[in-house]
Amino acid sequence: MNGNSFGDKLKITCFGESHGKAMGCIIEGCPAGITVTQEMIQSAVNKRKPVDTSVSTSRKEPDRVEILSGIFNDKTEGTPIALLIRNSDQHSFDYDKLKNIFRPGHADFTYDEKYKGFEDYRGGGRSSGRETVTRVAAGEVARQLLSKNNINVKAYTLEAAGIRCKKIALDEIEQNVLKAPDNDAAKAMLEKIQSLKEQKDSAGGIIECIITGIPCGIGEPVFEKLDAQLAKAMLSIGAVKGIEFGEGFNASKLTGSQNNDWMFIKDSKPAFESNHSGGILGGLSTGQDIIFRIAVKPVASIGKKQKTVMKTEDGFTETELELTGRHDVCLCPRIVPVIEAMACLTIADALLQSQEQ
Amino acid sequence: MNGNSFGDKLKITCFGESHGKAMGCIIEGCPAGITVTQEMIQSAVNKRKPVDTSVSTSRKEPDRVEILSGIFNDKTEGTPIALLIRNSDQHSFDYDKLKNIFRPGHADFTYDEKYKGFEDYRGGGRSSGRETVTRVAAGEVARQLLSKNNINVKAYTLEAAGIRCKKIALDEIEQNVLKAPDNDAAKAMLEKIQSLKEQKDSAGGIIECIITGIPCGIGEPVFEKLDAQLAKAMLSIGAVKGIEFGEGFNASKLTGSQNNDWMFIKDSKPAFESNHSGGILGGLSTGQDIIFRIAVKPVASIGKKQKTVMKTEDGFTETELELTGRHDVCLCPRIVPVIEAMACLTIADALLQSQEQ
Amino acid sequence: MNGNSFGDKLKITCFGESHGKAMGCIIEGCPAGITVTQEMIQSAVNKRKPVDTSVSTSRKEPDRVEILSGIFNDKTEGTPIALLIRNSDQHSFDYDKLKNIFRPGHADFTYDEKYKGFEDYRGGGRSSGRETVTRVAAGEVARQLLSKNNINVKAYTLEAAGIRCKKIALDEIEQNVLKAPDNDAAKAMLEKIQSLKEQKDSAGGIIECIITGIPCGIGEPVFEKLDAQLAKAMLSIGAVKGIEFGEGFNASKLTGSQNNDWMFIKDSKPAFESNHSGGILGGLSTGQDIIFRIAVKPVASIGKKQKTVMKTEDGFTETELELTGRHDVCLCPRIVPVIEAMACLTIADALLQSQEQ
Amino acid sequence: MNGNSFGDKLKITCFGESHGKAMGCIIEGCPAGITVTQEMIQSAVNKRKPVDTSVSTSRKEPDRVEILSGIFNDKTEGTPIALLIRNSDQHSFDYDKLKNIFRPGHADFTYDEKYKGFEDYRGGGRSSGRETVTRVAAGEVARQLLSKNNINVKAYTLEAAGIRCKKIALDEIEQNVLKAPDNDAAKAMLEKIQSLKEQKDSAGGIIECIITGIPCGIGEPVFEKLDAQLAKAMLSIGAVKGIEFGEGFNASKLTGSQNNDWMFIKDSKPAFESNHSGGILGGLSTGQDIIFRIAVKPVASIGKKQKTVMKTEDGFTETELELTGRHDVCLCPRIVPVIEAMACLTIADALLQSQEQ
Repeated sequence: MNGNSFGDKLKITCFGESHGKAMGCIIEGCPAGITVTQEMIQSAVNKRKPVDTSVSTSRKEPDRVEILSGIFNDKTEGTPIALLIRNSDQHSFDYDKLKNIFRPGHADFTYDEKYKGFEDYRGGGRSSGRETVTRVAAGEVARQLLSKNNINVKAYTLEAAGIRCKKIALDEIEQNVLKAPDNDAAKAMLEKIQSLKEQKDSAGGIIECIITGIPCGIGEPVFEKLDAQLAKAMLSIGAVKGIEFGEGFNASKLTGSQNNDWMFIKDSKPAFESNHSGGILGGLSTGQDIIFRIAVKPVASIGKKQKTVMKTEDGFTETELELTGRHDVCLCPRIVPVIEAMACLTIADALLQSQEQ
Repeated sequence: MNGNSFGDKLKITCFGESHGKAMGCIIEGCPAGITVTQEMIQSAVNKRKPVDTSVSTSRKEPDRVEILSGIFNDKTEGTPIALLIRNSDQHSFDYDKLKNIFRPGHADFTYDEKYKGFEDYRGGGRSSGRETVTRVAAGEVARQLLSKNNINVKAYTLEAAGIRCKKIALDEIEQNVLKAPDNDAAKAMLEKIQSLKEQKDSAGGIIECIITGIPCGIGEPVFEKLDAQLAKAMLSIGAVKGIEFGEGFNASKLTGSQNNDWMFIKDSKPAFESNHSGGILGGLSTGQDIIFRIAVKPVASIGKKQKTVMKTEDGFTETELELTGRHDVCLCPRIVPVIEAMACLTIADALLQSQEQ
Repeated sequence: MNGNSFGDKLKITCFGESHGKAMGCIIEGCPAGITVTQEMIQSAVNKRKPVDTSVSTSRKEPDRVEILSGIFNDKTEGTPIALLIRNSDQHSFDYDKLKNIFRPGHADFTYDEKYKGFEDYRGGGRSSGRETVTRVAAGEVARQLLSKNNINVKAYTLEAAGIRCKKIALDEIEQNVLKAPDNDAAKAMLEKIQSLKEQKDSAGGIIECIITGIPCGIGEPVFEKLDAQLAKAMLSIGAVKGIEFGEGFNASKLTGSQNNDWMFIKDSKPAFESNHSGGILGGLSTGQDIIFRIAVKPVASIGKKQKTVMKTEDGFTETELELTGRHDVCLCPRIVPVIEAMACLTIADALLQSQEQ
Repeated sequence: MNGNSFGDKLKITCFGESHGKAMGCIIEGCPAGITVTQEMIQSAVNKRKPVDTSVSTSRKEPDRVEILSGIFNDKTEGTPIALLIRNSDQHSFDYDKLKNIFRPGHADFTYDEKYKGFEDYRGGGRSSGRETVTRVAAGEVARQLLSKNNINVKAYTLEAAGIRCKKIALDEIEQNVLKAPDNDAAKAMLEKIQSLKEQKDSAGGIIECIITGIPCGIGEPVFEKLDAQLAKAMLSIGAVKGIEFGEGFNASKLTGSQNNDWMFIKDSKPAFESNHSGGILGGLSTGQDIIFRIAVKPVASIGKKQKTVMKTEDGFTETELELTGRHDVCLCPRIVPVIEAMACLTIADALLQSQEQ
């Protein structure tokens, strides 16, 4: 099973099954001398925890991060940084009754076809969203590297359950459980999500991410364009179904004269009058904010009765499924830190590739 | 300058500047014994040529492909396949007057910031869309490999200049210059594009791509999900600003019960009642058609007067630009074969990674 | 700091500083279904421990291996296998007095030039031979994969302190502390090494490695020849100064008619009359035993007074050094398992590349 | 067939079969602004041509190098540099009679086992030593990069046919056909080789390579040690059977006090009293000359009658072989530029990895 690594100069390699002993990763290529503490990484990982039980699962995961190598006296050494997060005792028996049922919207069927029974079925094993805990932990190291370069990454819920923010007030993001930059919209989202929960159904949403402070010229040409790297990073997150930069899909409806960003001179340097491009031209950063949006599908685990198929000893049979247990109703608030982490890792890698630390 | 390679097991490495001697690539990892002829590759490359002058540039490029290695008696040998396409004599002087002007919507400014003058400015050099000729040539080798596995890749213009197809009739795609699966819509698109051309403006559009015949379980978990790989492939094409799979951005507005694809048994095997997922679950193919859509921005080169900035000997100055010359008005028909080529390369690579040749 | 990974299809990525919290590695690409137990890996790691104090350091390292992921019910799952070995409490203060002295024959000077003070100086940090514990642990996983394919890797001390074995009796290797296939020679080696120890000096030696059961055709052409991969693997071990295959340096003195291995037919299949090539032709295995020899330099840490240079606050000054403490006198017995581990990793990777599991 | 690429930051990817249309390569990662002309590369490639017919084949290969991309006005652009060398018309029919015979000492048997008939058998196809022409061409680009950094790579024949140079006079290397730094020894070598030629036999030898001007600290730790990278580079050349650094195999017979290089202060900087290490400690360059020696086996193609095996329609049969035609008798003079090229590529790559251009 490949696909455990991300990045080139700044590279993470991850391991861990949902119900195995531990999750963890090795981060290679981080320059020496960056301040990184256990508290910083712990704090980042804590942001990924379930929020208000109206929206999230009520399952508890302590998720204590241990730094095994590469950091000495709170400074990176330049050597590989290994991070370890032990899994708490999960009740594996919960999953045994689901072992042979292909849950709609999940990877059960595709994994079973690919791995033909060798996969650890408990809690999704390697395919579980639990693997994102290592992304968030590693992302914090990347964030500190970016921070030293005055680059900031911020994501938020732009839309959830079909309700869209009417304003982008960054200071309101942490004031509501949806992580939306609009407290009023967040309130409406929460009501809609609670109503869907009562109907044993779930919701999706759109996350927007803004990267500020990135210098002009970051990224590589042809196959390693910065938007291509970010797209791969984001689509590698389960539940993500689309990405668009700047005007995105709307750009397809504009004319060139509407979509081109004119330039002028500001403080003796070239600047742009607008940012339809989303901060990337020809695969390289323009120096403006990088802006992209992510489509998040509704949570696949729902209580409503669904038709599906299960494996039997001698083949397959049709069945009906009513999932019980505690599931997220809308992933948006918990996916926000994962998107930030992947953006941090991608931009930090691109920055190192450009040797512009 | 990195970013010249794409793929892992099936890997292409490309070279060439727009106005240099030649474009070309090396394809590694293609198994031995696949039938590939010069005529096949030539025919694929020809599809990338400019179409009707209402839509495309009237510039001529003969684009004769030469196979230098790796194919013996019309069969792949398993050794690296090298392809060469010489550039015809371009009139470089056309570009000298633009040398110092940052064309809006182009990579001129970002490349100049990154490469600080070493780049070959003639015709965009390495950043020119001309590099896609090697993608299309290499893509044809991948297509033959897929074809042997009964996998088919088909892209078409779903929308151009804001006009969307009302039906998907695959047999109509080659009947109109827009490569749209709806001749009536194509006619309306063409009229709109001609009108924009008269206004010295340009149009964008949406391309849809369908991959049929792919077995279940292709792709890799975590960071190398099949949709992540396709997203990177597509966003690496200039002018592409977004991608969505299956329901895509619309999925964000659905509930779990609407978006989940229920399963049933058909011919003794598991099957799906719908395809909201676009043929990918957990990063692996479901065995259904893979469907995705691409946002193409309007052509940046327009005749309308635009404000921008140019380099001077001692800094920068503001200027106005009215581009003359022959430019594409809408990229859609010419980007279709590039999207097919990148999809072929991505799927063939994933197939080899899954060792399911 | 790069260089933490080895292998392509079977790939290990290592971490850990000599006096940090832990050493460890992630092993990717191991197929599912291989039997691997904690006891197997523990047993392999134990073979790397110091032997008789006449030859080795008397320092104690418990080196308890923990499997964190990728193995379920004693079978590999196909997912990344993470191994952890915690460092015991080392007395770092021992190293403080050496902090600024460049020990002759060690990497102190070159690391200081490269890392300019960011390196963890305690016990050599990342440059310490302690990192080989992860190679040995990971090598055992590769050995089990090879074992399933009837491939066996065996190394032994062919020569130590200038005394060479007169016979190759594999069953005697484990009967003497030198791991030599000749008990009489081993006795003479031990006496010579004890005598050097009394003189506060040290010894080198030659290790021979034999790989049996490897099928014909393993390896890749041009830059990834099997001997090239093995050479890199072996020279990546500290203290190794040379490698030769088959006749090796002696081949340079033979004629073609002496060195060519004639072929004949045995049991209806092609076979060789001799094995001057060492089991590799054109970079691919011939199906015969692969044989190579490794030059191991004498241990650099000696008690004898040596002239060297140390860093001062404002530059450098000459100094003399008499190392105290407990050091290996001859590395041969402790490097044997490291050489076997690297051979196992290299051959297993080549085997997977050849898809001949 | 993999194995076509070498290097990481400075990377070459090669293609071409011995009797196909052309050989060539793409060089990625070369910084912009290095002066490289067609004449420089042509001159390097010419040095690989057959020398005096007493030693070499009398076959003619014009080997005209064409630069296809990446160099503009005799300066590297930073983009991929593509080089093309067309094969002249070879008389393929010469090889048809050898098609089914496994020549002793050649890769015929191992390739046939691995590629099972798909390989281009003409002249060895991809396994032919002809592929080294692309190494030499690419090596010249690396040499120019090194030259700008005052690093020089020089190889020469230290021993041939069992006769060793008695002195190292670099100015004599180009004065004799053996490329030996000792004209008297070269004369004796030539006589011995001529005598072996008359006996339809062949000779091997030892090449020494010295790299001067390399700064301290180049190379990477653990698996990417500089000596490990050089060892892989050298063993990837056909006919090479061993490598040793500094004292090499002799180090195994020395004591620590004999082998350690003491340090002192020279011009206020640390320096070494001797160079037993061969210029590398802990995998990093010491700043001294890097010195290594290569064992070259005797040419496998000899006129003497040899026993071997050939394929028949229904299996194998024993046969005798007397090779006619024009073969090299001793590879030493023709392998010298290949060793220099691989050393240049390795050191330039390591230098770029160390970002010390």
